[in-house]
Amino acid sequence: MSSSSSKVQKRQKFEAVFPVLRDELVAHLAAQGMPEDAKEWYTKNLDYNVPGGKLNRGLAVVDTVEILKGRSLTDEEYFKAALLGWCVEFLQAFFLVSDDMMDQSVTRRGQPCYYRLERVNLIAVNDSFMLEMAIYYLIKSHFRSDPCYGYLIELFHETTYQTEIGQLIDLITAPEDHVDLSKFSLEKHKLIVIYKTAYYSFYLPVAAAMYMCGIPHSASNDPYELARSILIPLGEYFQVQDDFLDFAGTPEQIGKIGTDIIDNKCSWCINTALAHATPEQRTVLDANYGRKDAAAEARVKALYHEMDIPKLYEQYEEAAYKRIMGLIETIPAEPVAPQGQVVLKREVFVSFLQKIYKRTK
Amino acid sequence: MSSSSSKVQKRQKFEAVFPVLRDELVAHLAAQGMPEDAKEWYTKNLDYNVPGGKLNRGLAVVDTVEILKGRSLTDEEYFKAALLGWCVEFLQAFFLVSDDMMDQSVTRRGQPCYYRLERVNLIAVNDSFMLEMAIYYLIKSHFRSDPCYGYLIELFHETTYQTEIGQLIDLITAPEDHVDLSKFSLEKHKLIVIYKTAYYSFYLPVAAAMYMCGIPHSASNDPYELARSILIPLGEYFQVQDDFLDFAGTPEQIGKIGTDIIDNKCSWCINTALAHATPEQRTVLDANYGRKDAAAEARVKALYHEMDIPKLYEQYEEAAYKRIMGLIETIPAEPVAPQGQVVLKREVFVSFLQKIYKRTK
Repeated sequence: MSSSSSKVQKRQKFEAVFPVLRDELVAHLAAQGMPEDAKEWYTKNLDYNVPGGKLNRGLAVVDTVEILKGRSLTDEEYFKAALLGWCVEFLQAFFLVSDDMMDQSVTRRGQPCYYRLERVNLIAVNDSFMLEMAIYYLIKSHFRSDPCYGYLIELFHETTYQTEIGQLIDLITAPEDHVDLSKFSLEKHKLIVIYKTAYYSFYLPVAAAMYMCGIPHSASNDPYELARSILIPLGEYFQVQDDFLDFAGTPEQIGKIGTDIIDNKCSWCINTALAHATPEQRTVLDANYGRKDAAAEARVKALYHEMDIPKLYEQYEEAAYKRIMGLIETIPAEPVAPQGQVVLKREVFVSFLQKIYKRTK
Repeated sequence: MSSSSSKVQKRQKFEAVFPVLRDELVAHLAAQGMPEDAKEWYTKNLDYNVPGGKLNRGLAVVDTVEILKGRSLTDEEYFKAALLGWCVEFLQAFFLVSDDMMDQSVTRRGQPCYYRLERVNLIAVNDSFMLEMAIYYLIKSHFRSDPCYGYLIELFHETTYQTEIGQLIDLITAPEDHVDLSKFSLEKHKLIVIYKTAYYSFYLPVAAAMYMCGIPHSASNDPYELARSILIPLGEYFQVQDDFLDFAGTPEQIGKIGTDIIDNKCSWCINTALAHATPEQRTVLDANYGRKDAAAEARVKALYHEMDIPKLYEQYEEAAYKRIMGLIETIPAEPVAPQGQVVLKREVFVSFLQKIYKRTK
């Protein structure tokens, strides 16, 4: 079996779990005597918003559980790992539905943003809340008697709060309609990226898998702290790539047309440009960044090339790769697991890093 | 000390806890290196949205803890009870900020709705999320080593989800811009009221106080089930009053001008009218309910009087009072508490019922 057909099968197996969870959530509504139209509405909310993405975050939970256990999973183990993976996807759906409203976005995953559907509109706010609460319903339903139950709940709470804090800094630093580059800096960019993206996209799936496998906290060399110390830089690197590809990737590569410059996004590119700009270049950036104007955008792009942002990115990428690999290598190559226990392995992080390094899409 | 000055003092003591909680939440942001503008923003979000209401729900937690313990509280007990009370107020603030956006409301508590503030607008969505997550941060911070910690978290989750489900049914049953009275019924009204209001306003404060006092669940005659069986009808009665006062109360009594008829609200009044209407009266209701038109509203009001809704309300109120008092009296008048344990008392519910019975504001 080729690696790509195995990837498709993995995805299909994971996707097959979603209807089971959706049906459980809708059955819960039915059990409380909710009317037919409410059940239909919730079903549509779930189907429209949760399953249609790349599913990288959800699949990462299943992959990590498999790597940590070092064997294929029983059906029950697979279901529970996939359920946690879907909970990460529910969390992402909650964020995306509400972010699209806040950003007044038009399309998402090749279809109209949910809030733009005719009957939905502002009801999307409450619908996003229900996607969030589905997480705790499902975890309670399937993990309540598990020793990791409390840790999982706290992990989702903490990650949700971190992401919301990141979203807040982003919203007030880079409002679409008010350009003020003096608010930007590489430090601010790092803070936004870590809180808004890295925690929920990288730390959350791995930590959820670790809890499910029963890896205990430890006062010295806590494995969760170790995982965090690798996954947060990895998430930061991932988002810098995303920012760079928005500028330098072709629409064929990234599946969309980059709009970060026009949208006044606090991107790695503008922050790197600001860090290197001469006073004259800074004047050009102040005058042209974040304007709803193709000529202004072209002027910024030309400046990015003039300042050799692609070269600076290449240097960033090499340094990030080496630094993260160095962090990964602090984990013993052949860890000794006490009888019946699961310990953290290099492979968890290497598999992430290899998927990301030099990606162009 | 008169009862009303003692009420003011109770309120002031409770209000004095809020800045402590707000400062803890903002300090947590500071500890993570968040910029000054983010700390200021969160402070404003908290100050604008959380403390300015009647605080009945929050105070109910403190009152219930005092009644259950049957003595005045130590400073530490008071702080923890007040913290849980404020968590109920945070939950309400989360709902009100987002409901006001969904309803496109103009004012709240005598000031512009938060989302209408110039710099806020759609950022209010994320700000409402942060009010919600503050609950779990505070409970973790102060109850993590308490035996009731897990129960409190589940209680807030479950209540949040119930309220969101109630909000969903309300939103799809009674959209402001699409009148369809065939979707209304007293059963639907009851379902909306129980889920959207009664759980978070009545069951949540009492159950939180019970957990804090260490009252255990029990397989037979579960005290939480008993509390629920009284508080949900009580909450339903409270909302029916609210609906009736929107129609029959004077602006001096209710502090606002009732707009339920104009806003197509699924109110007890319209549902009672529908249940009793002749075909001719039904035609009048179909033609005039939910219209942005003072003459149509007056026509509905006249019909309510013609059908003697005030008399039907009086009958409802007497029956509800008797029924709820009967439920309360299933609790032993002199309950025997095992040594060192706290048990449920009639007084918890009687104090609620007396506050509500025949209220006109």
